[in-house]
Amino acid sequence: MKINDPHVIAEVEFQFARYERALMADDLAELDALFHDAPTTVRFGVGEVLYGIDEIRGFRKGRGGSPQRRLGRVAIASFGNDLATANAEFFREGNGPRGRQSQTWVRFPDGWKIVAAHVSIEGQAS
Amino acid sequence: MKINDPHVIAEVEFQFARYERALMADDLAELDALFHDAPTTVRFGVGEVLYGIDEIRGFRKGRGGSPQRRLGRVAIASFGNDLATANAEFFREGNGPRGRQSQTWVRFPDGWKIVAAHVSIEGQAS
Repeated sequence: MKINDPHVIAEVEFQFARYERALMADDLAELDALFHDAPTTVRFGVGEVLYGIDEIRGFRKGRGGSPQRRLGRVAIASFGNDLATANAEFFREGNGPRGRQSQTWVRFPDGWKIVAAHVSIEGQAS
Repeated sequence: MKINDPHVIAEVEFQFARYERALMADDLAELDALFHDAPTTVRFGVGEVLYGIDEIRGFRKGRGGSPQRRLGRVAIASFGNDLATANAEFFREGNGPRGRQSQTWVRFPDGWKIVAAHVSIEGQAS
């Protein structure tokens, strides 16, 4: 299994950036296109726990967009040709603690999709 | 790509349970055996951001063990033979908000390993 094949990394970096643009623009169609359309897809958000694409779509529709943010360190790793992880730090406006976003990407016949995501704000160590 | 092959799910469920037992027992050797030994491995914890297996090992050694917890809903999904995601809710002692743990598992020649993990406590929606 080839780890961090540069061609695979470049593809996932492209999709990762596409997702970030869509999130900041609240482009629901684009966000939806980048999440795997399946009941297995999970998104743990800062304040919500969503199982399956239907719950994820419902949340996005009612959200009115994500808070604006800038990205910090981004770590993308690929394992073989069809799997990648993207772990990113982010900072929302103001001086709050940093956020963290983890995504698992899988290549399907119709392209790279997020099959699981977890977003949180860093808290007290425990 | 076969999704949720029962044989693959059973394997990952076994490793997931093994990890949970090791975490509750602070069995550092076992925890270490279940994380991919690589600089690409990432662990976002409740109060820390760790890049690479060395940082993860260093954190575990100094931690004195995880707070005790019980698991809530656990969602494991597999994609092909060599990739799985495990997303779990957990509750620590007391009446605090629920925790969430996400793991990405990859099958290597020496077995299933976590290549990325994210643990957080649910916060205010935003």
